[in-house]
Amino acid sequence: MLIGKLDAVDVVIVDVARGDGTGRHDPRNVHPEGKVPYLITDDGQEVRESAAIMMYFDELFGQPLSPKIGTPMRGSFLSWMSYYGGVMEPVIVSAFSGIDHPAITGNFRGMAEVCTALEAGLKDRPFLLGEDIGIADILLASPFQWAPHLMPDSPAIKAWVKRVGDALDGSALATFEDKAVAELGALQSA
Amino acid sequence: MLIGKLDAVDVVIVDVARGDGTGRHDPRNVHPEGKVPYLITDDGQEVRESAAIMMYFDELFGQPLSPKIGTPMRGSFLSWMSYYGGVMEPVIVSAFSGIDHPAITGNFRGMAEVCTALEAGLKDRPFLLGEDIGIADILLASPFQWAPHLMPDSPAIKAWVKRVGDALDGSALATFEDKAVAELGALQSA
Ligand SMILES: N[C@@H](CCC(=O)N[C@@H](CS)C(=O)NCC(=O)O)C(=O)O
Ligand SMILES: N[C@@H](CCC(=O)N[C@@H](CS)C(=O)NCC(=O)O)C(=O)O
Repeated sequence: MLIGKLDAVDVVIVDVARGDGTGRHDPRNVHPEGKVPYLITDDGQEVRESAAIMMYFDELFGQPLSPKIGTPMRGSFLSWMSYYGGVMEPVIVSAFSGIDHPAITGNFRGMAEVCTALEAGLKDRPFLLGEDIGIADILLASPFQWAPHLMPDSPAIKAWVKRVGDALDGSALATFEDKAVAELGALQSA
Repeated sequence: MLIGKLDAVDVVIVDVARGDGTGRHDPRNVHPEGKVPYLITDDGQEVRESAAIMMYFDELFGQPLSPKIGTPMRGSFLSWMSYYGGVMEPVIVSAFSGIDHPAITGNFRGMAEVCTALEAGLKDRPFLLGEDIGIADILLASPFQWAPHLMPDSPAIKAWVKRVGDALDGSALATFEDKAVAELGALQSA
């Protein structure tokens, strides 16, 4: 949506099983484990994980939202994209679910370290890789958008999450989501 | 090592704190949380997470071990690289540590799903992306090399892990590791 390419993608709205017991593994969902998001490319490749799907789309459209190979900040970019799934998600899932297990904190650490890492990345710059928003910002700010109570008590991080939100078209996103929820409801009562 | 570029990298051997209580956060380790691996690029970027470091090196040397942007299997490649940290590591850490918590299995699933995913990826091909070994294979096979007891009881996966091991120069790796362990021992008793 941010790069104006939503029409190039065939979006299939599906239900998912949620932690609170609502929802279900939607039979129309082709993800082998019933998760979202999931991408089937035009040539039939199956791509899972938000980070990979965002990188694939960004590359397909000429990398408007990430540093190209061989340019400055490419290493930092790859680091943030891997950090999301490799550290931030396990830490957020544990914090969200109240898991406090030495193997989890030993391997992934906790919210304090995530906060330190984000603050270091945002030192002297508005977005993680510089002056402009990119897919790294959208991905790493996303947990704090759906779980604001997990937002670290850090002015730098709060200001960045707000900047990311402001850079996205909130009303277009809300319209898209409302339509999706209505479509899902219609499918389920059919 | 596989692409003959070990000499281009300044490898610093450091100790780490291990789950069994041995080792320690090495003061010579510049990783903010005392982990390995960690890369500082020539222009000072800090790169964490095995997947990102492997991608950075592979890109730096012309991508001998991954599909280039816009070529077939690029989507599958990005998917596997994100799957490693985003799913496989949390599942392996949980299996290794005997964690059985609904939030972990709910979010990341378990070894059965990892086995199914790898078997699907290896269907009709010797390596995850085709005929040749790549960084995706080295990364995803690595947990089964250091924790063979977690290897799924799957002939396809066992044969792939063996193929990956055979494609690497085992004796050069062993020599490198022996030297590293000796260097670390000398540093610690100094
Ligand atoms: N690491 C994955 C997480 C995917 C994920 O767990 N998605 C949730 C919704 S945000 C889901 O599909 N839950 C339903 C389920 O696990 O069955 C990613 O970044 O894509
Ligand atoms: N997801 C990380 C894992 C890094 C990691 O946990 N490394 C271990 C050694 S394999 C470590 O440094 N442990 C010491 C510690 O956590 O303090 C990656 O792929 O780089």
